[in-house]
Amino acid sequence: MKNIHPEPLIILASKSPRRRYLLKQAGISFSVVPSTINEKTIPESPPETYVRTLSEAKADDISNIYPDKWIIGADTIVLKEGTILGKPGSRDDARHMLKQLSGEIHQVLTGYAICCKAIHRKFSETIKTEVLFKHLTDDEIEWYIQTKEPFGKAGAYAIQGLGMFLVKRINGSYTNVVGLPVCEVIEFLIKAGVLDLSVEKPNT
Amino acid sequence: MKNIHPEPLIILASKSPRRRYLLKQAGISFSVVPSTINEKTIPESPPETYVRTLSEAKADDISNIYPDKWIIGADTIVLKEGTILGKPGSRDDARHMLKQLSGEIHQVLTGYAICCKAIHRKFSETIKTEVLFKHLTDDEIEWYIQTKEPFGKAGAYAIQGLGMFLVKRINGSYTNVVGLPVCEVIEFLIKAGVLDLSVEKPNT
Repeated sequence: MKNIHPEPLIILASKSPRRRYLLKQAGISFSVVPSTINEKTIPESPPETYVRTLSEAKADDISNIYPDKWIIGADTIVLKEGTILGKPGSRDDARHMLKQLSGEIHQVLTGYAICCKAIHRKFSETIKTEVLFKHLTDDEIEWYIQTKEPFGKAGAYAIQGLGMFLVKRINGSYTNVVGLPVCEVIEFLIKAGVLDLSVEKPNT
Repeated sequence: MKNIHPEPLIILASKSPRRRYLLKQAGISFSVVPSTINEKTIPESPPETYVRTLSEAKADDISNIYPDKWIIGADTIVLKEGTILGKPGSRDDARHMLKQLSGEIHQVLTGYAICCKAIHRKFSETIKTEVLFKHLTDDEIEWYIQTKEPFGKAGAYAIQGLGMFLVKRINGSYTNVVGLPVCEVIEFLIKAGVLDLSVEKPNT
């Protein structure tokens, strides 16, 4: 999949290495300019609205600097029975979160926004995925915590890393749990004419 | 997660780079000795049985050479309305398969077997995941075919590669679609005492 223009038209307004990895694996050319938006400026609202509003704020932030580029903003949260599980601040925090998730279903919500300010186009939505954890023993939780992977991750785990052993099944988009619903993002970019699907030379 | 013994106790009896990637990401130490079993020697049977039988045959094959190691065999197939979609042999084959999968749900079945001949232990099962493809345009299909990714892949796609744009949602294990249900495999290896979860030194 090629961008219509040789220079990357797409900017990912996120410093998340996981989102960068996803877009790269999907064959997209893009640059990265992380938004520095203060999350505290986002008004309180239901989680579905909150992540979408925050993703818009991130995209708008970078759109103001690069109005003729297509900016992708995103935010991901982990929800257990209506409560947001953020990034653990301590081993105790991580332990508590992993115990809450053990053997149970939780939701991962990613809000994403794609906008191009110069042509007044903006799209945003929230995608929800259900995740079922296996039942975790104390040894498994302690082992996972000492790998340090839980730190810096919403809900204290990374589905694409060592944490893959925690996840028994999901219902919904997998890439959404990693941090960006790639199918939906690419679908939008193709329809908006940002990605080019023209075939160069058949040689297989 | 460490193996109980310093030298890898685990052998992956598969040449699939995707299975190797999964086990590596999950932090497992293992070596690779691909089985050379002839798939045609497996008796005809329902798909669920067939993949499990084939995974056992692969594991047994390598167990005969390394009876004191834990051998993992696996086989993955893509099923659409009861029909197995193999690896496409031509562009036409790939086009036909992708058109069949477009906008529809199909099943991915992975049979896996774990055995240690010296202590007479063997476990095998088949895990099934449902996959929903987005509706594909002809341009999307042609673009994907010219990337050559469909070739050598059951069902003509790779969920962890460029093909991630095809997949809208899944219901079940994600790693099972990639080629090995990691949660289940690790669960077995922990219970069998092959993987060690002892924590070294807490320092976070």
